[in-house]
Amino acid sequence: MTVKIFDSADVQNFLNQVAGFDQAGGNARAKQILHRLLGDVYQLIDDYDVTPEEFWSAVSLMNELGKETQFGLLAPGLGFDHYLDMRMDAADAEAGLTGGTPRTIEGPLYVAGAPVCEVEARLDDGSDTDSEVMWLTGQVRDTQGNPVPHAQVEVWHANAKGGYSFFDPSQSDYHLRRTILADAEGRYHARSIIPSGYGVPQGSPTDQVLAALGRHGQRPAHIHFFVSAPGHRHLTTQINLAGDEYTWDDFAFATREELVVDAKRIESLSEAELRGLSGPFTEVVFDIELAKTEDPEQQARHKRPRALEDG
Amino acid sequence: MTVKIFDSADVQNFLNQVAGFDQAGGNARAKQILHRLLGDVYQLIDDYDVTPEEFWSAVSLMNELGKETQFGLLAPGLGFDHYLDMRMDAADAEAGLTGGTPRTIEGPLYVAGAPVCEVEARLDDGSDTDSEVMWLTGQVRDTQGNPVPHAQVEVWHANAKGGYSFFDPSQSDYHLRRTILADAEGRYHARSIIPSGYGVPQGSPTDQVLAALGRHGQRPAHIHFFVSAPGHRHLTTQINLAGDEYTWDDFAFATREELVVDAKRIESLSEAELRGLSGPFTEVVFDIELAKTEDPEQQARHKRPRALEDG
Repeated sequence: MTVKIFDSADVQNFLNQVAGFDQAGGNARAKQILHRLLGDVYQLIDDYDVTPEEFWSAVSLMNELGKETQFGLLAPGLGFDHYLDMRMDAADAEAGLTGGTPRTIEGPLYVAGAPVCEVEARLDDGSDTDSEVMWLTGQVRDTQGNPVPHAQVEVWHANAKGGYSFFDPSQSDYHLRRTILADAEGRYHARSIIPSGYGVPQGSPTDQVLAALGRHGQRPAHIHFFVSAPGHRHLTTQINLAGDEYTWDDFAFATREELVVDAKRIESLSEAELRGLSGPFTEVVFDIELAKTEDPEQQARHKRPRALEDG
Repeated sequence: MTVKIFDSADVQNFLNQVAGFDQAGGNARAKQILHRLLGDVYQLIDDYDVTPEEFWSAVSLMNELGKETQFGLLAPGLGFDHYLDMRMDAADAEAGLTGGTPRTIEGPLYVAGAPVCEVEARLDDGSDTDSEVMWLTGQVRDTQGNPVPHAQVEVWHANAKGGYSFFDPSQSDYHLRRTILADAEGRYHARSIIPSGYGVPQGSPTDQVLAALGRHGQRPAHIHFFVSAPGHRHLTTQINLAGDEYTWDDFAFATREELVVDAKRIESLSEAELRGLSGPFTEVVFDIELAKTEDPEQQARHKRPRALEDG
């Protein structure tokens, strides 16, 4: 089929009607944005001669994505989360807000309401006795190098199989999720287990889209952070453990050079005892720098529908 | 935020990577189409300064749409089904394939496998004793006016509450759905009940999108048809019963002038008896013209994931 109808008056008038331009009610911004988006897709259908069969396959795939709550998993795979970060970085640069630990994507697996601990937390419930113990520690400072006292460090990560509590029903509630209040020097300490990388479920709708693009759905081993303190910009970030095969090939495009952290194996029993551990462990040090801001909106994470978050 | 980054080399390179242009595997057409679609959406985000909160609200709404299998319901509301029809009409005109009853959208509520009846069918199961009896009849002809013997006329429609069997669990299987094989003169007869208009479920994700556009989600009373016969073009169409308040204000944009049909109330007992009925009824006459074609692909409905359709 070689017909091109998009530029015709009929189609353009139809598009205005679809977007509700002839209706008094509704939301003006939603109308503008949907008019633009629908026009783009109509034109794409014309330009690529998208067949009804192709169109309805896409509709069916979108139903499947929704049924498995995977639009938030596909979004980073299609680069949206990183693209939004690039835009926020550019806006910061324009406003002269430079310095500090870089942001990276939140991902879809945060769950609000994790237990709050003072200074030191144990994240794992001890059920995974084969996993290597991880000692995760660091200091929260401002961009001048001064400690940020009592900063709030929220941490979540996968288990040794790459699964997250709440999404993986085999784990206990809030397993590997804690909010740690740093000490007066901004220091925090977390005992946990070394996470594995995450992979999108094989054969899932997200996996099907990535396969059509010739891509995999793997992430390197990583640990998520929300870090905040009054007078400082809220930071959403992640660290990757150096040496993972996917560190520089993350399907979610979250890796940033400043966020690749060495994991150091420590065999010394005296070092272990200092941390209340009984044997060899892996230490991960992540110091965090927060930029200062007076803007209250910048001090909180942006709104987004999140599991168990208070309305 | 006023930053515009879409045209930067960083974003363009990133987009190529997201679309898998640097990967050997995958599907070349999927890569091209997704590259175009993602680029359009990235640029829209830039142009409209779409906030993370707006973006994640859209992701959440898409999950809800999929959970309720409503992408196929939203699609006609956003004009896609009618737009695909406009493209097929234009292609037919270009190929000189004019004449015949016009096509209109299928909608998402077809279910394959309805009982097959010779010449005459009863569509309702008699459970709705308050509904007006509908006597639906007509003749299938070619564009020269010659009868199309033994044409296959598949009919489906809503009950008096606007619900469809299989999707409305209160109805029996295949209620108001039949495949009728016309007689040697192309004539078919169906006894049923007058359908009501359909409305998208109030407060559903589809309804939320339409409300944002200032639009309603109502359809006029209508009856769906698939009509086919060897050597003729498969026809997907619907008729609307004249006089409905939504006939010219259908949220799914399916109404076409040639497809608005009078429903005629008949009080005569002798007319009723002729049709095996015991009282007043409403007659709906729909004669169908099929265009001739030798192309086997044009003789079948296009492929689309459909409820209960054989692989």
